Amino acid sequence: MAEFIYGHWAVMECLRAGRRTADQLLLSETVEEKGVVADIIALAQKKGIKIQRSPRRILDDLAAGGNHQSTVLRVGQYPYADVEDMLSLAQQRGEKPFLLLLDLLKDPQNVGVLLRVADSVGVHGIIIQERRSVSVTPSVVNASSGAVEHLNVAQVTNLPTTMKDLKEQDVWLVGLEAGPDVPPIDKSDLNMSLGLVLGSEGEGMRRLVRETCDILLSLPMRGNLASLNVATAGSVALYTAWQARGWEGWKR
Amino acid sequence: MAEFIYGHWAVMECLRAGRRTADQLLLSETVEEKGVVADIIALAQKKGIKIQRSPRRILDDLAAGGNHQSTVLRVGQYPYADVEDMLSLAQQRGEKPFLLLLDLLKDPQNVGVLLRVADSVGVHGIIIQERRSVSVTPSVVNASSGAVEHLNVAQVTNLPTTMKDLKEQDVWLVGLEAGPDVPPIDKSDLNMSLGLVLGSEGEGMRRLVRETCDILLSLPMRGNLASLNVATAGSVALYTAWQARGWEGWKR
Repeated sequence: MAEFIYGHWAVMECLRAGRRTADQLLLSETVEEKGVVADIIALAQKKGIKIQRSPRRILDDLAAGGNHQSTVLRVGQYPYADVEDMLSLAQQRGEKPFLLLLDLLKDPQNVGVLLRVADSVGVHGIIIQERRSVSVTPSVVNASSGAVEHLNVAQVTNLPTTMKDLKEQDVWLVGLEAGPDVPPIDKSDLNMSLGLVLGSEGEGMRRLVRETCDILLSLPMRGNLASLNVATAGSVALYTAWQARGWEGWKR
Repeated sequence: MAEFIYGHWAVMECLRAGRRTADQLLLSETVEEKGVVADIIALAQKKGIKIQRSPRRILDDLAAGGNHQSTVLRVGQYPYADVEDMLSLAQQRGEKPFLLLLDLLKDPQNVGVLLRVADSVGVHGIIIQERRSVSVTPSVVNASSGAVEHLNVAQVTNLPTTMKDLKEQDVWLVGLEAGPDVPPIDKSDLNMSLGLVLGSEGEGMRRLVRETCDILLSLPMRGNLASLNVATAGSVALYTAWQARGWEGWKR
């Protein structure tokens, strides 16, 4: 089934990554062919993709109310990876595995932010539960500024089972959890074969997911509010982990 | 002039902080008095604030299209602080100053996220340029989940001048800037009297602001995208700085 990717960077990175089929670029009738839009058109032409001018309301419909910035790309389904692809990528790069596991996250904006940061720090893959969780929808692609088009994302039917498999392959599972009894995040726990586990926005990790972690760490807080947004907390944790790895693979 | 704060946590924290006058709580006709809404009503009653049920479209108007969650509070203006308040707070806590400086940020969502994190890590204040920059509007209050109601925020007419004043008071100004020639952020540069400086979403810091910093640091990136969102980058930098201070003031 066709999907409609929208927004400048989402469309651009989808074309650059070239992992999906793409057969039509829709631009609103009024958008000018300059800046990133000109770059998108040039890349689409090079790939032989049909370019069509359409009324704005058509684009509004295709983007289901999202901020499409006059640019929509008709593409095939997102190419999900599997966990083996992630471990192979780590091996190929000569790095210890660095994975992100998301348990029942619901908000496309949060998942998009986390995927963008996951790209920045070079994780080998992201594992999400298949049901009751956000999948890689066009709104997630948009919120990630297209980063997810370059990433390995696996959907698994049972996250605790996958976690147990990872543990057998010596991946150390670190769950991020708020709470006064949970030790603060520290680099010393993160420079190893790592799966960072984040729970859902309101509820945190499910019990079985939490219990399957090797260790729980918290992001300390000293302010007036009781919690941080999961995208913020996860972003800080991902960067702390990458710093623990000595900024391995940093392209200066 | 009256302002209209909207959203559960924005309204709740505004009431809890108690720094603004508040004279009317508007609830939509259909909202149920349970959970956080019941807590808000109880707190408003305790403070003698008039509570009124209104049609949803009235609340839509007052929130100017924001997600008001059926809850709007009519309040007086935001109580801006000045830089001296921030330095006094640091002294009073027996801590080295920890400040956040924002140069021409435009997006209320980004500023809100940064203020929420600033609260979490215990900064003594946030300094923003008065013109061409986001101020503490109801949409910023909402995006910060109300955190800004507890914080010292100063508006200054000329950020570089304020930076020079801070340098004379031995505050070390660290500008966060993307770029291959900029050294990576490191705890060793952050455990001192600190002002962390962030530039605007598209443009970064203005030239004079950048030149007035004592040092520039970058958040490394190794992915496919060229930049990180300023709210994400700033959140990571704030937490790195607080970690450098040994999680000072952490309420376990």
